[in-house]
Amino acid sequence: MPMLADPSKRYHPFKALPFTERTWPNKQHEKAPIWLSTDLRDGNQSLANPMTNSQKLRFFRHLVKLGFKEIEVSYPAASEPDFNFVQDLINNGEIPDDVWIQVLTPARSDLIKKTFESLKGAKNAIVHMYNATSCLFREVVFNADQKETIRLATTHSQLVRELAEEYASKVSTSLLVYDLASLIDRSLFGLCKQYGTNFRFEYSPETFSQTEPAYAVEVCEAVKKAWLSGPGSTWGDGRKEERIIFNLPATVEVATPNCFADQVEYFSTHISEREKVIISLHTHNDRGCAVAASELGILAGADRIEGTVLGNGERTGNVDLVTLALNLYSQGITPHLDFSDMFSVIDTVTECTGLPVHPRHPYAGELVFTAFSGSHQDAIKKGFEAQQKRQATGDIHWELPYLPIDPADVGCTYEAVIRVNSQSGKGGIAYIVKQAQSLDLPRRMQIAFYKVVQSISEATGRELSVQDITDALRREYHVGGTQFDGRMVLRSFTLSDSLTDGTPTPADPESGPDRQRTLTAKVSVDGIVRHISGTGNGPLSAFLNALNSGLGIDLAVREYSEHAIGGGSDVKAASYVEVIPPDADPKDKTQGGFWGIGVDPDITGSGLRAVLSAANNALGKGELKGSAFENDDKKLNGIQ
Amino acid sequence: MPMLADPSKRYHPFKALPFTERTWPNKQHEKAPIWLSTDLRDGNQSLANPMTNSQKLRFFRHLVKLGFKEIEVSYPAASEPDFNFVQDLINNGEIPDDVWIQVLTPARSDLIKKTFESLKGAKNAIVHMYNATSCLFREVVFNADQKETIRLATTHSQLVRELAEEYASKVSTSLLVYDLASLIDRSLFGLCKQYGTNFRFEYSPETFSQTEPAYAVEVCEAVKKAWLSGPGSTWGDGRKEERIIFNLPATVEVATPNCFADQVEYFSTHISEREKVIISLHTHNDRGCAVAASELGILAGADRIEGTVLGNGERTGNVDLVTLALNLYSQGITPHLDFSDMFSVIDTVTECTGLPVHPRHPYAGELVFTAFSGSHQDAIKKGFEAQQKRQATGDIHWELPYLPIDPADVGCTYEAVIRVNSQSGKGGIAYIVKQAQSLDLPRRMQIAFYKVVQSISEATGRELSVQDITDALRREYHVGGTQFDGRMVLRSFTLSDSLTDGTPTPADPESGPDRQRTLTAKVSVDGIVRHISGTGNGPLSAFLNALNSGLGIDLAVREYSEHAIGGGSDVKAASYVEVIPPDADPKDKTQGGFWGIGVDPDITGSGLRAVLSAANNALGKGELKGSAFENDDKKLNGIQ
Repeated sequence: MPMLADPSKRYHPFKALPFTERTWPNKQHEKAPIWLSTDLRDGNQSLANPMTNSQKLRFFRHLVKLGFKEIEVSYPAASEPDFNFVQDLINNGEIPDDVWIQVLTPARSDLIKKTFESLKGAKNAIVHMYNATSCLFREVVFNADQKETIRLATTHSQLVRELAEEYASKVSTSLLVYDLASLIDRSLFGLCKQYGTNFRFEYSPETFSQTEPAYAVEVCEAVKKAWLSGPGSTWGDGRKEERIIFNLPATVEVATPNCFADQVEYFSTHISEREKVIISLHTHNDRGCAVAASELGILAGADRIEGTVLGNGERTGNVDLVTLALNLYSQGITPHLDFSDMFSVIDTVTECTGLPVHPRHPYAGELVFTAFSGSHQDAIKKGFEAQQKRQATGDIHWELPYLPIDPADVGCTYEAVIRVNSQSGKGGIAYIVKQAQSLDLPRRMQIAFYKVVQSISEATGRELSVQDITDALRREYHVGGTQFDGRMVLRSFTLSDSLTDGTPTPADPESGPDRQRTLTAKVSVDGIVRHISGTGNGPLSAFLNALNSGLGIDLAVREYSEHAIGGGSDVKAASYVEVIPPDADPKDKTQGGFWGIGVDPDITGSGLRAVLSAANNALGKGELKGSAFENDDKKLNGIQ
Repeated sequence: MPMLADPSKRYHPFKALPFTERTWPNKQHEKAPIWLSTDLRDGNQSLANPMTNSQKLRFFRHLVKLGFKEIEVSYPAASEPDFNFVQDLINNGEIPDDVWIQVLTPARSDLIKKTFESLKGAKNAIVHMYNATSCLFREVVFNADQKETIRLATTHSQLVRELAEEYASKVSTSLLVYDLASLIDRSLFGLCKQYGTNFRFEYSPETFSQTEPAYAVEVCEAVKKAWLSGPGSTWGDGRKEERIIFNLPATVEVATPNCFADQVEYFSTHISEREKVIISLHTHNDRGCAVAASELGILAGADRIEGTVLGNGERTGNVDLVTLALNLYSQGITPHLDFSDMFSVIDTVTECTGLPVHPRHPYAGELVFTAFSGSHQDAIKKGFEAQQKRQATGDIHWELPYLPIDPADVGCTYEAVIRVNSQSGKGGIAYIVKQAQSLDLPRRMQIAFYKVVQSISEATGRELSVQDITDALRREYHVGGTQFDGRMVLRSFTLSDSLTDGTPTPADPESGPDRQRTLTAKVSVDGIVRHISGTGNGPLSAFLNALNSGLGIDLAVREYSEHAIGGGSDVKAASYVEVIPPDADPKDKTQGGFWGIGVDPDITGSGLRAVLSAANNALGKGELKGSAFENDDKKLNGIQ
């Protein structure tokens, strides 16, 4: 069906609450809200294939591990498996003493009774009752007016209160038996009270965000009256009453999140005895703004958030608690939920719900810390370097381009941060080489190697793995194993120092005449070992001299650098060298050079290997002439 | 790495702009913004495997079809494929006359020049230049202070302006040749102007949301000065200048969306010559609030939104334009984008990007219009009925529980709305039976059939398809084909009217003594045809009498209803009957009854079939005694 030319004929705009007294836009988050996970209830209700009870148990244990203290575990009156799940949790001792389980029931007597039965033996339980209060639901679904809807809520609130009083004073049989010995010093009556369930009450005016704001307050006032006996009131057994929870659902998200925040602030400032009330939010993501609605709702006065881990739930899902918690975390506020092992969270959620996590899901998706584009990679690389410098001065603050939190905080390795394809640049590739091989390529060598990688990625049209890049480097520069050897391989070398006049080097090499070095090396060329030797004012120039006189290879060094790899007894040297043919302009650095890498425990060895690596590189490109390779042209022409 | 006990040691909170003059929270959306799709640029840059140019072309054509008038097609200086894609679009006539292509370039001379080259021959082009302006980027990435950063922006803005002037007056060679004939009446000069490119300029202070607000304005003022020559200024050729676009990116989302809206309103109220400026937003979803940030940003003064279709883009993605557009749509505002064929949108995006669409993605996910839970299904069913009644009175407004828009508006069938598993209730199942089989089960029969379905879904633990439910109904009530026949099948019947005194029925049946009907029927029992007959004051009671006297089956009717199916010559009758054994209490409706369905072109026939369906149902449950089945117990006991 095509869209109407003017859809305004078909949809009513949301009527925003005229509420200019709002104060929430001037506020900031200061602490984490109380969290309630409804994964096992709202989340489970929305699955094509609901969880089995063993999946629910696995999920419950994970929620406890993550730090949840309030967990909605079931809609016990909906089905036998739902009912049994609650009883199994209780009877098998799965619920830690500081965790409150929560169960949902509609405002219907038989279902409320069944709900209480499911809680038999629980230490701490939140009974969550709901009925829809919006005009649409009143008229279309319940055929009830405002007064009847309030009566529905209060009648069943009273029943909940009565049943709670009853169950709170019931004795858990098993506990009675175990503690029979301690009965000696206490009256049976006192014991009964002691082992009764601690109850909290929660009421949701379902479809709150579509309910007239003043009417929503009116309904909740009536429920509060039914549930709270008076100021500082107590239970029959002398315990002080818990605050009651008013949970305000955006059952369907119907407006921008600022409108929802206005509704929350209106509620928070109009409900009486605010100190006896916990305001809870329960948002859905129909307009893609559930996170925003919850966050602005907290600014507007809410104390508590209901949601699910990674946002499962009816239709577009409940609000995602991972995003909310880590949003606080990135602002320096401890969320009291531990998502440091995100991979195990993803495993549990996907295996229990059968739903995937999108690669771009905030904080959890496979791609959310990843940069492919050259400019992003370059900035991240510089950011990491600056971060390391700051850390060295004792500043542990995280501040890095494109990365709002340290990926390591959620168990992500840095390998995921920079990945390479045809959109990538030299910085990212150099970053990977440094991470994977501890090689810190000089800037102009990064450009040279970038071209190598780009030609591979353009040819394949796909992402290159760290292994692809590592192999490309090894092939290009003939390092990292005999399988990557070039046509020339350094077998061994001897270096001797002498002064230019032939006498041995004095103790202080700086004080005498120019030093002269003689290098003798065994170099295998196409498998045949050749002995070469040469002299120069350092090992590199002596080696170049030997290559020239022994193999007819005439090269000069344009750039050389080195750094250490590792430390202690395992320390190695990495050398980088750019060589140029004799006819190249040493000052025009845009052309003519060939790069090489050498790694060796000995710094002289790494330099020599780097020169040979560069020479092999030039040779591989057909850009090197030398008497040792005079048959190459014949080979190419098929003469040999 | 475990989280720090107190992460506030590691992360700085976002410093919100103190901006109490904000007016946006009192505003509402009134019209759609200008849309810019950056799927082919930002979206493509963030893919592990970037799109091939043929995939980009397919995507471009789809964007045009959806109604986009501004499309960022490339970062031409990044790679040859990117460059060639722009030229191919232009040279192959892919760009409609009313569509502006946009290309991105950093503020670097060589890249800007290459970017302009890629636009050669374009009719309408937006040149989009950016440089990062936040403190972190200035210090860590560019090593430049505030002044140097402004100079970077203005120097390159001037270059863009100069190149635009140059390219605007260039002639497209191919067009010159084609239109040589028309040269006769025009000066060559005039023609040159006519075929030059229309340029617009866009500048992004990258990382705007992390930039000092006053400084962001300062940078943009400098760019504006470089780009606009003065009030009412014109190009060299006399064309009036286009407004320039200031695109304000939340390059990384770092704060709640209200903070971003404050920044936008600050910018919008502090930039001079506001009427010459289009304010554009470019949000990312790092905190899951990109949609909210864009929506509140529009309230705060933005005119234009950059994003992608279904939210591809760096890391967590760019803002999703599908959600933004349909959010407006659901408020009665035409978005000027056509998502009525969502399936083809999903096909194009997933096949070009290689990324999936999450099942809970707003408006587009597989599950977002689906209700599994009983209470939701029940409300939706009632909502549909109310909607139909309203429509009959000419009210076309959409207002339905749990469904913010009509799923049909995005090409979704109603089959996707209600799906059945162990969480579902009678309402949903009844809805599916009605949709699939045109059978409108009476309320108490819905409960009976719900139990049948629930036992299947609890046993299988999976979702039930429409076919599963249809088959369950056929098996339970022995309707819908000979393969579902019960042990008793009605072969034929004859009904005759007579008065209780034996005379034929008078013309007015109401006026005479009690009517009496005689029914003769052929009923096959376990394959053997039996002739039975009986009398009663209507066909049903006559049939029950016949069953009793002929087969020894003693049943009474507790509830009966019927409705028509279809219309015209194809009209049929559907009848529903509940029968009870003679010993059951007809007033205690909670037990003892068996339901049956009959469908027949003749209403009498449908009633009789319904009675036999109910009897077969009872028989199948071993709850029916009768002389015709006296061997059943023997069979069960293995005697026969």
